[in-house]
Amino acid sequence: MSRDDVVYHDFMSRWEPGAEGRLKRAALELYTERGFEQTTVAEIAARAGLTARTFFRYFADKREVLFAGQSTMYELIVNTVADAPESLSPIEAVEHTLLAMASFMEAMGEGARQRQNVISANAELRERELIKLASLTASIADALRSRGAADPVATLSAEAGVAVFKVAFERWVAQPRGAGLAALIKETFDELGTVIGSRE
Amino acid sequence: MSRDDVVYHDFMSRWEPGAEGRLKRAALELYTERGFEQTTVAEIAARAGLTARTFFRYFADKREVLFAGQSTMYELIVNTVADAPESLSPIEAVEHTLLAMASFMEAMGEGARQRQNVISANAELRERELIKLASLTASIADALRSRGAADPVATLSAEAGVAVFKVAFERWVAQPRGAGLAALIKETFDELGTVIGSRE
Repeated sequence: MSRDDVVYHDFMSRWEPGAEGRLKRAALELYTERGFEQTTVAEIAARAGLTARTFFRYFADKREVLFAGQSTMYELIVNTVADAPESLSPIEAVEHTLLAMASFMEAMGEGARQRQNVISANAELRERELIKLASLTASIADALRSRGAADPVATLSAEAGVAVFKVAFERWVAQPRGAGLAALIKETFDELGTVIGSRE
Repeated sequence: MSRDDVVYHDFMSRWEPGAEGRLKRAALELYTERGFEQTTVAEIAARAGLTARTFFRYFADKREVLFAGQSTMYELIVNTVADAPESLSPIEAVEHTLLAMASFMEAMGEGARQRQNVISANAELRERELIKLASLTASIADALRSRGAADPVATLSAEAGVAVFKVAFERWVAQPRGAGLAALIKETFDELGTVIGSRE
């Protein structure tokens, strides 16, 4: 065994290759099978073929498995809004961003659906998601202001965009064999236009 | 002293006349002067000229002072949406209701503004408000469905209405000498129409 092998072995014993993804998949499976409350960290680790100690190297607790990665995605959303082509109106910049994100979520496929179903089934998780979405809305409004949008246009565009996304995402989760997420986002934006346009 | 007087006296010693209103006003004053966290129930009761024991007859804790009464108002909103004239489209039913509510909030005047400023200054209170607003949105969507609206129109109308209300209310709180709340609600609905209409 060379010195490099030893270093490599030591590294691998602490940072299992793919451990994070395996833990996430195991957690989503268990939350789906027996519910979030009824699942323990020990069970998640066992399902992933890892130890609880390894679990805690990646996640603070079993709730974090559902929300880790979200901040990265939210950051991406906010940056994409800020950098959207100047020719786009604020609501177009938001739509452009949500459509770009749709491909990511579709690539996550079943995992994104499972996650949403787990969150919907638990009041505490729903509240946490709500708070995260409100902070995303505020950050999108900030990004729109950074592109020169004034208020209330910035806030209204962010609120409308997040509302459309929530509705489109719920429809997508509910119909695994239905339209793609991007198509649903476009359609829901159109429907919001019709709804608002019905004011006399 | 008649038997009636005795019963009346006994009743009054437990249920101070106007105690609830005095406690609310005292709490809002103290939260505004020294912050929500820094205020104790004993201080609120003292400011209102009452005892802590009396405080706890009306409110479970100091947070409840800010949210008591809200459920009644939310119930009123949901009923008004459900009973709005049939000729109104879903978004019109929501607008009609928010305009009716605006008069109530304007009648509460400074108290409504103070309450909002106290909530905005505290993360825990903001989260609680957010959760209440999300549940209001869901109830408005239910009320719209009871009037025959289909989804996603019901959800989108509720989401759009609550977003407009939040923006209009913030503007109203920020400008005590500006436009009335009803005028701001109408204006913000118009602006949302312009925002959505800017999609190509």
